[in-house]
Amino acid sequence: MFTAGFSVQRLVSTARAKRSLLCVGLDPMPEHLPQGAGSVLAFCKAIVEATAPYALAYKVNFAFFEALGTAGWDTLYRVRELLPADALLIADAKRGDIGTSSERYARAIFEALAFDAVTLSPYMGHDSVAPFLGYPERWVFLLGLTSNPGAADFQQLPLASGGTLAQAVLQTAQTWPRAAELGFVVGATRPDALLALRQQCPAPWFLVPGVGAQGGESLPVLSAAATPQGGVLLTVSRGILYASAGPDFAAAAAAAARAYAETTQAFVPAGTPIT
Amino acid sequence: MFTAGFSVQRLVSTARAKRSLLCVGLDPMPEHLPQGAGSVLAFCKAIVEATAPYALAYKVNFAFFEALGTAGWDTLYRVRELLPADALLIADAKRGDIGTSSERYARAIFEALAFDAVTLSPYMGHDSVAPFLGYPERWVFLLGLTSNPGAADFQQLPLASGGTLAQAVLQTAQTWPRAAELGFVVGATRPDALLALRQQCPAPWFLVPGVGAQGGESLPVLSAAATPQGGVLLTVSRGILYASAGPDFAAAAAAAARAYAETTQAFVPAGTPIT
Repeated sequence: MFTAGFSVQRLVSTARAKRSLLCVGLDPMPEHLPQGAGSVLAFCKAIVEATAPYALAYKVNFAFFEALGTAGWDTLYRVRELLPADALLIADAKRGDIGTSSERYARAIFEALAFDAVTLSPYMGHDSVAPFLGYPERWVFLLGLTSNPGAADFQQLPLASGGTLAQAVLQTAQTWPRAAELGFVVGATRPDALLALRQQCPAPWFLVPGVGAQGGESLPVLSAAATPQGGVLLTVSRGILYASAGPDFAAAAAAAARAYAETTQAFVPAGTPIT
Repeated sequence: MFTAGFSVQRLVSTARAKRSLLCVGLDPMPEHLPQGAGSVLAFCKAIVEATAPYALAYKVNFAFFEALGTAGWDTLYRVRELLPADALLIADAKRGDIGTSSERYARAIFEALAFDAVTLSPYMGHDSVAPFLGYPERWVFLLGLTSNPGAADFQQLPLASGGTLAQAVLQTAQTWPRAAELGFVVGATRPDALLALRQQCPAPWFLVPGVGAQGGESLPVLSAAATPQGGVLLTVSRGILYASAGPDFAAAAAAAARAYAETTQAFVPAGTPIT
């Protein structure tokens, strides 16, 4: 079976060794595969091989595999098998259920699939997240402020006690037991809001999607999100996967990944994290 | 492929014909199967056959299938195939992602798996739900106030504008386009809070889990949740699936389902719903 698990220290060391905070998002769309990519599995394999030197993490978006039907779940397992052990492997599953069901999702993601990390929704509160925090050196990235327009509907609602719902999620979750490997998803499309959340919560790692196709620019995002302790996983999906629609897609993906990784170099946490 | 789709009118007619508001929750636990149940698939088949006369709906909890590994997703498809067409078939998946990913989850659940309904998390707002509302006569049950202790962490936070987050979710979501087949998950473990939400939102259907093993009692829940227009799906999982640990488990499940269905009879909506 797979090995899995990443201490905070190991993640920082790996970022320093690879000089990268890049997280490559795997969102394969069968109807948009580049020329010569073959199957979804072959496409993912080529992308992973091309980007591995530059990727601190990979984020596998479960939606794109589940949409393939029964074969999709099998493809997900095969893609998991080809992901490199020296990257943080994130199941972008956005699960969130009551305790007994969450235990099952945790087994699926941390045991059967042996991912290092998972994205979860905070809506159902602590006991929906706790089963995932029970696995040492596995990470939870809790949705904080997402990159889509609908983030305004609830996440940015002002609370009677002050601040927004997203702020309350970050503050409350950091008080939960075993929060050392708890990070937050904070979208790149709102750098001001991202900065406000970061000033409030300097320590945890932020998983930042929305760079590239969704309109977030790398540098302002990194400037807002990186602190000496709090690392950033700059997540790019379509900007790497579909960097070229032609048979040179893998080389184009490698070049795009290298360029994104270079942008992140100056923001790699310098030393021992606070844990 | 499967047929799927339930208008509000068809759901009311079916409830009247079956004299039932019971939703049977399928949460199979391989380590707790009754004696003689065989495989998870055989167990689900026996439960469905035993309860079909009394079930207005079935709710399939994806967590319990995903935890089985690659075989679990295959089992999920096979369980879907044996569910009866005269019940509302609910994918209890609690998905919630940005628009492009939500489109993929909608394809997986409404096309590949052909469920009639899905549970979703509201945290990411309207555009995360909209792809599911684009399917006519397919239902979305949005998490409102859930039955677990963690519901207190965020769902019950007071907002600056008055009311709680859960109240805002119900009120806001009802204003979204194509809300006719939009219902809400409201847990049975807080009848007072359930009543308050119902007084505010009399029309939509409520999917009410938490009866039985989680401690909610049927009658106070039904009294609080049922209105002349707004139906209730009283969801029972462990109280039916594990009604007996012996080889008579199917007969015990049938008896439990019949008893729950009888409890709901008086609360079946009387006539044409407001749509």
